Amino acid sequence: MNQEPIYEGKAKKIFTTQNPDELLVYFKDDATAFNGVKKGTIVNKGMLNNKISTFFFDLLGKNGIPHHFIRMLNDREMLVKKLDILMVEVVVRNIAAGSLAKRIGWEEGRKLPCTVVEMYYKNDELGDPLINAYHIKALNLATDEQIRIMETYALKINDILTDYLKNKKLALIDFKLEFGIHKGEVLLGDEISPDTCRFWDTETGEKLDKDRFRRDLGDVEDAYEEVLFRLTGETVK
Amino acid sequence: MNQEPIYEGKAKKIFTTQNPDELLVYFKDDATAFNGVKKGTIVNKGMLNNKISTFFFDLLGKNGIPHHFIRMLNDREMLVKKLDILMVEVVVRNIAAGSLAKRIGWEEGRKLPCTVVEMYYKNDELGDPLINAYHIKALNLATDEQIRIMETYALKINDILTDYLKNKKLALIDFKLEFGIHKGEVLLGDEISPDTCRFWDTETGEKLDKDRFRRDLGDVEDAYEEVLFRLTGETVK
Ligand SMILES: Nc1ncnc2c1ncn2[C@@H]1O[C@H](COP(=O)(O)OP(=O)(O)OP(=O)(O)O)[C@@H](O)[C@H]1O
Ligand SMILES: Nc1ncnc2c1ncn2[C@@H]1O[C@H](COP(=O)(O)OP(=O)(O)OP(=O)(O)O)[C@@H](O)[C@H]1O
Ligand SMILES: [Mg+2]
Ligand SMILES: [Mg+2]
Repeated sequence: MNQEPIYEGKAKKIFTTQNPDELLVYFKDDATAFNGVKKGTIVNKGMLNNKISTFFFDLLGKNGIPHHFIRMLNDREMLVKKLDILMVEVVVRNIAAGSLAKRIGWEEGRKLPCTVVEMYYKNDELGDPLINAYHIKALNLATDEQIRIMETYALKINDILTDYLKNKKLALIDFKLEFGIHKGEVLLGDEISPDTCRFWDTETGEKLDKDRFRRDLGDVEDAYEEVLFRLTGETVK
Repeated sequence: MNQEPIYEGKAKKIFTTQNPDELLVYFKDDATAFNGVKKGTIVNKGMLNNKISTFFFDLLGKNGIPHHFIRMLNDREMLVKKLDILMVEVVVRNIAAGSLAKRIGWEEGRKLPCTVVEMYYKNDELGDPLINAYHIKALNLATDEQIRIMETYALKINDILTDYLKNKKLALIDFKLEFGIHKGEVLLGDEISPDTCRFWDTETGEKLDKDRFRRDLGDVEDAYEEVLFRLTGETVK
């Protein structure tokens, strides 16, 4: 990997490959929160998120969700199908937390009577604002059909992950997804990790996700380690 | 009108009547903006909004929109059907302005490629946050069927008002609606006025609505007067 990335984001670098349909994703240890205002490093995060995402894409693929993941290349890199990313972040929530708790005035941890799907405009400058299907249409971010597909996949992914994680004594509070178009098809992209999900231990309620970094709760790396360990029995140290 | 109102809001007072199915709405001259942070008075606003709302409810009724308005009682008061107000504010937008312009980063005045409907949680404490149909369901604010009806009415109202106002050389930029339940039926409620709509002169672009108050543009009362005059040929002075 001596070439320059075609994109360097807050958590990952993206490289082209010999195959124009495929990209290489390199997972960094950099951590940011509050739209880049808080910055730091989580030791081994890149490795952990690469492995955790690999595990989840695999699980979702086996359960009928089309995704970009091809294979893990090494500890920090995965090969994926190149997507035209839809500039919409899809959030699924089972328990009120974070910005939803603020928005609707519920205490964090209160169970939502029904699963909530939200769409955010993927736009750092605007602070990723909440939008609805009309905004998406007006902004030409996705077609009605693509919105419908993202929503359907998001709910199905929630069911698959929630079920799986229950057995690992992890409650899936909420998570963020990104989708993109590959050869005309909507595929799940980006990553699925403690950076993009909230996982709470079902018994102790302990947070095992990026909120430990956002809120300075300590033991950040241990939390990411613990998630990987519960999923695969693996450790990275 | 010697009794106490059962509710005093920022712009109106609500009184019971002999008939338990009917309420009296008294329109005040009080003006507020930014969720009550800015306060003031617009001389004759109560009278003007009562008359303007009367005109619009009449127009919408003739065009098949079920609403709460029964009749005007005097300059500042109207009789309406009592509603259980759905705690959702429905906003329809044709041109980017106000909070939408900020949310999506568009300059005010840019035409939206398609009409945008938004739902806000009617909750002053939370600052009336934008929500979607999932939030409405989770918060138990309205049923799916009621959401569908509000959306359908909102779009139809937009067509009716836009068409009508065009002939009066007024562009309908956006507007806010409230709905409620009366004997099991969804009815349009509250008011339709320069407090709840943005009207721009189609030729000069001049703002003829509450933005004159919000943004200290001057000639606030004249603007409300002008709207009534264009609609009915009436003046209140
Ligand atoms: N298969 C894919 N093809 C193309 N781009 C992808 C793919 N998967 C993810 N991406 C994009 O690659 C970038 C990953 O980098 P990273 O997550 O670090 O970005 P970020 O700093 O979070 O910024 P952003 O706000 O753009 O996500 C994101 O922009 C993501 O949308
Ligand atoms: N037909 C109706 N039956 C019952 N309540 C109504 C009816 N029409 C309007 N209302 C309610 O009466 C109140 C009108 O008062 P006003 O518009 O001054 O309130 P406000 O200060 O804007 O506060 P709010 O944020 O509650 O609207 C609103 O709460 C409105 O929802
Ligand atoms: Mg990202
Ligand atoms: Mg009001």
